[in-house]
Amino acid sequence: MNYNAIQDAFFKLKSNRLFELFVIFIIIVSALEIGAKTYQLPDTAVTFTQFLDLFITLFFLVEITIRFIAEPEKKQFFKSGWNIFDTLVVVISLIPISDSEMALLARLVRVFRVLRMVSVIPELRILINSLIKALPQLGYVMLLMFIIFYIYAAIGSFLFNTINPVLWGNIAISMLTLFRVMTFEDWTDVQYETMEVYPYSWIFYLSFIFFTAFAFLNMVIGIVVNVMEEEHAKARAEEHEGEPTIVDLHSEIKELKQMIVELQKKQ
Amino acid sequence: MNYNAIQDAFFKLKSNRLFELFVIFIIIVSALEIGAKTYQLPDTAVTFTQFLDLFITLFFLVEITIRFIAEPEKKQFFKSGWNIFDTLVVVISLIPISDSEMALLARLVRVFRVLRMVSVIPELRILINSLIKALPQLGYVMLLMFIIFYIYAAIGSFLFNTINPVLWGNIAISMLTLFRVMTFEDWTDVQYETMEVYPYSWIFYLSFIFFTAFAFLNMVIGIVVNVMEEEHAKARAEEHEGEPTIVDLHSEIKELKQMIVELQKKQ
Amino acid sequence: MNYNAIQDAFFKLKSNRLFELFVIFIIIVSALEIGAKTYQLPDTAVTFTQFLDLFITLFFLVEITIRFIAEPEKKQFFKSGWNIFDTLVVVISLIPISDSEMALLARLVRVFRVLRMVSVIPELRILINSLIKALPQLGYVMLLMFIIFYIYAAIGSFLFNTINPVLWGNIAISMLTLFRVMTFEDWTDVQYETMEVYPYSWIFYLSFIFFTAFAFLNMVIGIVVNVMEEEHAKARAEEHEGEPTIVDLHSEIKELKQMIVELQKKQ
Amino acid sequence: MNYNAIQDAFFKLKSNRLFELFVIFIIIVSALEIGAKTYQLPDTAVTFTQFLDLFITLFFLVEITIRFIAEPEKKQFFKSGWNIFDTLVVVISLIPISDSEMALLARLVRVFRVLRMVSVIPELRILINSLIKALPQLGYVMLLMFIIFYIYAAIGSFLFNTINPVLWGNIAISMLTLFRVMTFEDWTDVQYETMEVYPYSWIFYLSFIFFTAFAFLNMVIGIVVNVMEEEHAKARAEEHEGEPTIVDLHSEIKELKQMIVELQKKQ
Repeated sequence: MNYNAIQDAFFKLKSNRLFELFVIFIIIVSALEIGAKTYQLPDTAVTFTQFLDLFITLFFLVEITIRFIAEPEKKQFFKSGWNIFDTLVVVISLIPISDSEMALLARLVRVFRVLRMVSVIPELRILINSLIKALPQLGYVMLLMFIIFYIYAAIGSFLFNTINPVLWGNIAISMLTLFRVMTFEDWTDVQYETMEVYPYSWIFYLSFIFFTAFAFLNMVIGIVVNVMEEEHAKARAEEHEGEPTIVDLHSEIKELKQMIVELQKKQ
Repeated sequence: MNYNAIQDAFFKLKSNRLFELFVIFIIIVSALEIGAKTYQLPDTAVTFTQFLDLFITLFFLVEITIRFIAEPEKKQFFKSGWNIFDTLVVVISLIPISDSEMALLARLVRVFRVLRMVSVIPELRILINSLIKALPQLGYVMLLMFIIFYIYAAIGSFLFNTINPVLWGNIAISMLTLFRVMTFEDWTDVQYETMEVYPYSWIFYLSFIFFTAFAFLNMVIGIVVNVMEEEHAKARAEEHEGEPTIVDLHSEIKELKQMIVELQKKQ
Repeated sequence: MNYNAIQDAFFKLKSNRLFELFVIFIIIVSALEIGAKTYQLPDTAVTFTQFLDLFITLFFLVEITIRFIAEPEKKQFFKSGWNIFDTLVVVISLIPISDSEMALLARLVRVFRVLRMVSVIPELRILINSLIKALPQLGYVMLLMFIIFYIYAAIGSFLFNTINPVLWGNIAISMLTLFRVMTFEDWTDVQYETMEVYPYSWIFYLSFIFFTAFAFLNMVIGIVVNVMEEEHAKARAEEHEGEPTIVDLHSEIKELKQMIVELQKKQ
Repeated sequence: MNYNAIQDAFFKLKSNRLFELFVIFIIIVSALEIGAKTYQLPDTAVTFTQFLDLFITLFFLVEITIRFIAEPEKKQFFKSGWNIFDTLVVVISLIPISDSEMALLARLVRVFRVLRMVSVIPELRILINSLIKALPQLGYVMLLMFIIFYIYAAIGSFLFNTINPVLWGNIAISMLTLFRVMTFEDWTDVQYETMEVYPYSWIFYLSFIFFTAFAFLNMVIGIVVNVMEEEHAKARAEEHEGEPTIVDLHSEIKELKQMIVELQKKQ
C-alpha cells in the first residue's frame, strides 16, 4: 500500500460524519474529565482519570496525524490558525510532567483542549472568525478608552493617593479601581471616601462614567453600523444577482433610440 | 341534538368575544387567588380560596373540553403546543392532593395557570412565538459562552480552590461565581481576595469580562441584524406587491425593440 | 378697545420671542426657588421665597390667561394635553394652604412647575410626544414581563417564605425582591441565602435573569426596528417626492408601445 | 536663507513620517513618565524624571513652533481647535512652578499631554470629531434627563430629608443619590431605608428607574438611527455616483416618445 492510498483513506476517514462526531464526543469526555478533577475524587477515580487522560492525549495525537497525512499540500496545513492551535495543544500535553509545581501548568494546558470544540464545530469557527474580523474596528476605540482611563488614573493617583493607597496607590491600581467604577461595582463607596477630602470629586467620577459610557456606546454603534452595512450589501447583491439593473435599462433605451434614428434616416 | 350540532354550538361559543373575555377574567381571578395565598389569610378566606380553586379547576376543565369538542379535526388539536400546555395544566391540577409535602407541588402547578394568559391573548402568543424563533440563532452563541465559562471555571477552580472553596470549590460552583462576576455583582470582592495570593489574577477577571461582554454584544447584534433584515424584506415585499419591477421594465423594453425591428423589416 | 383687539394683542405677545424667553426664565427661577427650599435658609431668605412664590404663581396665572385669551377658538385650547397640564399646575398652586400637613403637598405640587419647561420648549415637547408614541408598542412586552415577574414571585413566595420573610413574605414583596435581582443589586446575597435550604435554587435566579433580560432585549429591538422603519419610510418618501417612480416608467413605456403599434398600423 | 525656505523645510519636516512617529514616541514617553511619578521612586529616578520633563516641555515647544512656522497662513493655525489645545498644553507647562501647592496643579496640567495623542493620531481625531458631532443630538435628551433628575431630587429631598440627611439633605446631594440609584449601586439600601417610613416609596424608585432607563434608551436609539441614516445615505450616494437614475431613464423615454411622434408626423 503506497502513501497516496493511505492519504486517500485518511482523507475519507477525516471527512466521515461518524469520525467527526466521535472527535466531538472525545472532546466532551475530555471536558468532563477536566471538570471532574475539580472535585474531591476517590483514589480509583483518580487512577481512572489518569488512564483516560493518557487515552485522550494519544487519541488527539492520532487524530491530528490523520488530518496532517490526509492533507494533500503539507504547507497548507500550517497556514490555518486552527490547525496550529490544535497541534500546539496536542504537543504541549505530550510533555511528561512529574514536578508538582508543573502539575498545575499541565492541568491548565489540558483545559485548552475544551477550546478544540471551537476548531471542530464549523458554526463556532464562523462565529469566532466574525469576532476576530470586528477586532480592528474596535482597536482605535479601545485605544481612546485606554487614554481616558490613563488620564483619569493619573489624576486619581495624584489627588487621592494619600486618601486610600489601596485604591489609588499608583497608576496601575488606579486603572483597576476605575474599571471597577465603570462596572458600577460599589463605586459610591470609592466616591464618598474621596468626597470627604475633596467635596467636588463627584465631578471626577461622573465625568469619567459619562466619557467611558459615551465611548462604549460609540463602539457598539460603530460595530452595529458596520456589520449591518456589509450584511445588507451582501444580501442585496445576492438577491438581485443576474437581474437587470437601471444601468442595463439605460443602455437598452439608448439602443432603442439608435434604432429609431435609423428608422428616421431610412424614410 | 346530534354531535355536529353540539360541535357547531361550541365553536360559536369558543369564538364568542364575551366568552373569551370571561376566560381572561377567570385567569386573572386565578392569578389573584394565587397571589392572595402568599399572604396570611383568616380561616374564612382560606375556605373561600379552596372553593374558588375547585371552581377554577372545573371551569378550566369545561373550557378545554369545549375547545376540544369545537375542533372539527381532533388530531389538529394536539398539534398546537398551546393546547397541549393548556391540557397539561388542567389535568395536573385535577390530581387530588392530600399529603402536605405534595401540597407545595400542587401550589406550584397552579402558578402555571397564570401562563394561560399567554395562550389566551393572541398578541402575547405572537410575542412568545417570535422569541422562540430567535432561539436557534442564540444557540451557538450560548454554546460559545458556555465554553468560555467552562474554561474560566476550570482555571479558576484549579488556581483559587484553596483560597476560597465557597466560591471556587469545584467547576459548578466556579461557574456560578463567574456568572456573578459577569453581572458585576460584588465582583471586586472576589477579585481582591485572589489578588492577595496571585497579584496578576486581575487579568483573569478582566479578560473574562471582556470576552463574555464581547460575545454577548455579538449575540445582540446578530439578533438585531437578522430580525431587521427579515422585517425590512417583508415590509418591502408587501409595499411593492403588484407593482412593476425593473425586471418587468426590461422585458417591456425588449418587446419594444422587437416591434421596432419589425417596423424596420416592413420598410 | 374691543375684545378682538385684545385677542390680537395677546396673540402677538404670546408669539413674541422675548416673552417666550421671559416665561422660560421665570420657570428656571421657579426651579431654583424649589431647589433653594431644600437647603437650610436664613429667615430673610424664607420671607423672600414666599414673596417670590406668590409672584411666580401670579405670573403663571397671567401667562395662562393671556394664552387662553389669545386662542381664537376657546374649545381648541383644552384639546391640547399641554394646556390642560399647565392649567392644572397653575390652579392647584392657587389653593391657599395653611395646615402644616398640607404644606408638604403644596411643595410637591410646586415641583411640577419645573415640568412646564417641557411644555414651553418645543424640542422637549417633540421628545416627550415620541416617547408617548412608543408606549403602546411597549404595552404587551410590559404585560409579558409582569406575568413572568408574577409567576416567579408566586413561586419564590411559596418556597422561600420561611427562609427570609423580609424578602419573600408575600407576592408583592417578592416582586420587589425580583426587581432587585433583575437590576443585579446584591442578588447573590439573596441567592446564597436560599441555596442553603434549596441547593438548586440558583436555577430559579438564572432562569429569571435569562427570561427578563431576553424579554427586555426583545423590547429594545422591537422599538428600534419600528422607529427605524418609520424614520426610513418618511425620509425616503420626502427625498424622492415628485420624482418619477418605476410605476411611472412602466406607464410611459406602455404609451410608447401604443404609439409604435399605431405606426405599424399606418404602414 | 530666507523665511520662505525655512517655512518649506519645516513643512517637509512636519509632514515627514519619521518625525510624526518620533512625536508619538515622545508623547508615549511623556505618558510613561506621568505614570512613573505615581510610584515611589528612588532619588536618582526623581532627578531623571525632572530632566526628562524639561526635555519633553522643550521638545513640545519646538514641535509646536515648527508646526506654526510651517503653516503658510498664520491665521488658519488658530482656527483648528486641536492647534489651540496643543498650544495651551505647551504654554501652561512652561510656567515655572516652585510652590508645593501649585506642584499638584503642574502635575495635573502635564497629564493632559497624554491627550496630545488624540491630536496627533488622525484616526482618534476622526473618532473624537464624530463624538462631538453627536453632542447636539444628545443635548435635549440630557436636558430632559436633568429635568427628571431635578424633579425627583426635589421630591426626594422634601420627603426623605429627615430620614437620612446624608443621602437626601438638599437637592444637590439628592441628585447624586439618584445618579447612584440609576447605576443600580446599592439602590435597595436607599430604598429599604425610606420604605420603613413611607412604605409606598418603592413607587418613587421604580418610576425613576423606568423614566431614566426609558429616556436613555430613546437617546441610544436616536443616535443609532441618525448615525445610520447618514452613513447609509453617504454609502448609497458614493456607490451609485455617475450611474443613471430613474429620473434619467424618465427623460430618455420622453425623448424616445418625441422621436416617435416625429416619425408619425413624417408619414
